[in-house]
Amino acid sequence: MGNADYTMGYEMLHSRAKRLGDIEHAVAMLSWDEAVMMPSGGGASRAGALATLKDAARELLVAPDFAELLDAAAQDDLAPWQAANVALLRRQRERALAVPSDLAIALSKAASACEQAWRPARAANDWQAVAEKLVVVIDLTRQQAVALGEALGCAPYDALLDEYEPGLDRERVDAIFAELSRALPPLIDRAVERPAARNPAGPFPGERQAALGSALMSALGFDFDRGRLDTSHHPFCGGEPDDTRITTRYDEADFLKSMFAVLHETGHALYQQGLPAAWRGLPVGEACGMALHESQSLTMEMQVCRSREFLEFAAPLIQRHLLGGATNAAEWRPDNLWRLATTVSRGFIRVDADELTYPLHVILRYELETALVDGSLAVADLPDAWREGMSRRLGVDTGGDFANGVMQDTHWFGGLVGYFPCYTIGAVIAAQLHRAAKAELGDVQDAIRQGDFHAVLEWQRANIHGRGSVLSTFDLVTEATGRELGTEAFIDHLRTRYRE
Amino acid sequence: MGNADYTMGYEMLHSRAKRLGDIEHAVAMLSWDEAVMMPSGGGASRAGALATLKDAARELLVAPDFAELLDAAAQDDLAPWQAANVALLRRQRERALAVPSDLAIALSKAASACEQAWRPARAANDWQAVAEKLVVVIDLTRQQAVALGEALGCAPYDALLDEYEPGLDRERVDAIFAELSRALPPLIDRAVERPAARNPAGPFPGERQAALGSALMSALGFDFDRGRLDTSHHPFCGGEPDDTRITTRYDEADFLKSMFAVLHETGHALYQQGLPAAWRGLPVGEACGMALHESQSLTMEMQVCRSREFLEFAAPLIQRHLLGGATNAAEWRPDNLWRLATTVSRGFIRVDADELTYPLHVILRYELETALVDGSLAVADLPDAWREGMSRRLGVDTGGDFANGVMQDTHWFGGLVGYFPCYTIGAVIAAQLHRAAKAELGDVQDAIRQGDFHAVLEWQRANIHGRGSVLSTFDLVTEATGRELGTEAFIDHLRTRYRE
Repeated sequence: MGNADYTMGYEMLHSRAKRLGDIEHAVAMLSWDEAVMMPSGGGASRAGALATLKDAARELLVAPDFAELLDAAAQDDLAPWQAANVALLRRQRERALAVPSDLAIALSKAASACEQAWRPARAANDWQAVAEKLVVVIDLTRQQAVALGEALGCAPYDALLDEYEPGLDRERVDAIFAELSRALPPLIDRAVERPAARNPAGPFPGERQAALGSALMSALGFDFDRGRLDTSHHPFCGGEPDDTRITTRYDEADFLKSMFAVLHETGHALYQQGLPAAWRGLPVGEACGMALHESQSLTMEMQVCRSREFLEFAAPLIQRHLLGGATNAAEWRPDNLWRLATTVSRGFIRVDADELTYPLHVILRYELETALVDGSLAVADLPDAWREGMSRRLGVDTGGDFANGVMQDTHWFGGLVGYFPCYTIGAVIAAQLHRAAKAELGDVQDAIRQGDFHAVLEWQRANIHGRGSVLSTFDLVTEATGRELGTEAFIDHLRTRYRE
Repeated sequence: MGNADYTMGYEMLHSRAKRLGDIEHAVAMLSWDEAVMMPSGGGASRAGALATLKDAARELLVAPDFAELLDAAAQDDLAPWQAANVALLRRQRERALAVPSDLAIALSKAASACEQAWRPARAANDWQAVAEKLVVVIDLTRQQAVALGEALGCAPYDALLDEYEPGLDRERVDAIFAELSRALPPLIDRAVERPAARNPAGPFPGERQAALGSALMSALGFDFDRGRLDTSHHPFCGGEPDDTRITTRYDEADFLKSMFAVLHETGHALYQQGLPAAWRGLPVGEACGMALHESQSLTMEMQVCRSREFLEFAAPLIQRHLLGGATNAAEWRPDNLWRLATTVSRGFIRVDADELTYPLHVILRYELETALVDGSLAVADLPDAWREGMSRRLGVDTGGDFANGVMQDTHWFGGLVGYFPCYTIGAVIAAQLHRAAKAELGDVQDAIRQGDFHAVLEWQRANIHGRGSVLSTFDLVTEATGRELGTEAFIDHLRTRYRE
């Protein structure tokens, strides 16, 4: 057979993959709408529609003729990106086939019921109202993890990690987290002693904060012809590459919260907008995984924007948008803003945590969720384990405050187990990538002071964004930085910033 | 076999129908998003996703096992609403099967290309830039109409009408339009002579108009827990019953445009929100057709809100929202606002037309599109036919102004042929329904003056909204009003209002 016949196989697979991508587009956009636009009454029909769309995607993946398409495509003479695309589709199919349909549906329903019960229960600090539902979710999650592990040939918890960051496993997480567990506490001890910075006095109206956020997004390179900024209960980045939608929320008393949330989500958005246009709608054109995604948000937020140089650039912009003009008042000066942006304190809440204590929040969750999955920790014992862990890791006593303790995050209640490590692995990747970028580009901090983010963005575009999922996250990091992922750059970064 | 076995057939069909409804939910919401939220860059991937979803819906309908489900369900012991549901699904399948897939795709692509070319061409008043593309759209539409007509056993143009308003045909449209063609011109001659009303001087900021619109929506009974008001280029009502989304646009110089657009769309929205909750996601739980839908918007806009009594209620609200407080200035008084709301003039533009001239705009379009479909009018001759028709029907000369003439509406360029009559059939239905409501309820105008729309809405809920599609539009109107649809109530309404 000639080459034309060979490529037919790939073309047919390609068109099936695009169909899958179209359904994922619908899921992504309807999920954004649910969080940002949908009135409460729309919840039931939206849940039904999303379940049907996810099921339609699953049906495409598990259909017997999809296996034939994969096999036929694999026999073609494929470019590396095509081969990667085939491999990614095969992996999606394996994952879809590994979990029996009734287990998948039971878990989805249990997680949905548990998450819905969690919202009011958290508000009422009522652990008992969700405990039994969480038992069911964790039990079904364990069954799912076992089924996936058997199919993929790995340990159950590794199979969960792999869902969010392909190729990530406990061995890597354990090694990284052990080093951070040693390095962070002394840095924190020292950082919490630094003199307090001054808080600019609000209120800062939401519209002004939104205008500031948009101005900063544009400065960093966000393309508003291919995206939006909106408001939601929790900041996130959704949508798809040509229609990337980030959200924030506004605290009228503290503009820095929203500002850094926007800068964080802009990092996610720049990754998404920078994915390779030629591979739209195909797995190979998507982001590698959530740890790499988080590395992109943290490159912008932590490496670039919580720097003195960024705040020298941003201070006049902040003053103009929030005060209507320039000021020399001490609390509005770049140095004070930078000290506010790098304030360290031991708190209860992960999403409010600073760069130094955040990994300890994640490590505690990792410790607990691995124990839940391997069965060594029962859901009933989770509140005590939480209190003990917070005391041991962060030296704070959460007491009977479940709402700001074990119930603070939606993840477990919504069936998201194996996701937490991505946050901190992402921070570690960000530091190593940014160090490599600086080594290649020279003094980027001076450009940042001028509000010129071009070189930093172009480096990420060339080394990360534009690569899609041709390589796995860890191979991509190795290729981009010339070394295996390690904690050295991250710990160096923290030492430099917090020992200044 | 026992009853349990019999109902199995219906249950299986029910669950397939819900799946279809879920896909339609996604299409509706993504279409709303496209018009209201989507940045320009998202267009290509959105078009792909919508095409895939529509194709997935089509595949569900034409699948061979769907016929089996329909046949099995039809043998069950069905309640009337279930039987109606089966019949509606069967009709959807027949329509889907009637048009060959390659013709459907060719028409969809041609219409999409023509509509995209139409936007800039209209702005440039350049008929030649779209003429050839429109030839293709009309040609494919004729093929579609012939195929549908053969399958449904009706004339080609009737098959198009039936798509938008099931059961509507030329015979009915011809009869109604002939009566209106006689009755309206003398009413218009007289109405255009009425002394001009005074225009309140703007500008009226969009936010204030939006607050006024929301207040009026709430007054009429719109449920904001199950819907939203947003801004788009053209006002419309989208979404689904539990998440009904209406839009408007704001002209800072003329608040009445947006206000009546909101009241119009609120009429559509009240219908949608009032559809029977027990039948969500099923064809029987949906609106009958676009003429009945339009009757609901026009009941609110024309029958209820362009009345003296409504403007007596609304004037203080309008003053408060737009001026910040009450005024006695002549142009803000209820009588002047009512005269503005009922001003009649012969213009070029359908969407700007008043209640008296609007039907003549529609009748011209009906005349032309039936001729295009039966082949007696060529696209090349359409501009001359338009100019002649506007002169004959409305006494205005559109000359070489294509943008405000033959190119003003998106419908034909986007492949929407057979839709225009719904606007005026809807106006005729609205008058007959409102007359019946008043006959049953007594003096509703006094309640309207008090801002109490409860009785009017409840009547529509009981007689129209809550019935879903159990009956066809025309049977429903007969049942609700005790007589066949006729023009008497509409012409009486116009005579009363415009001879005052």
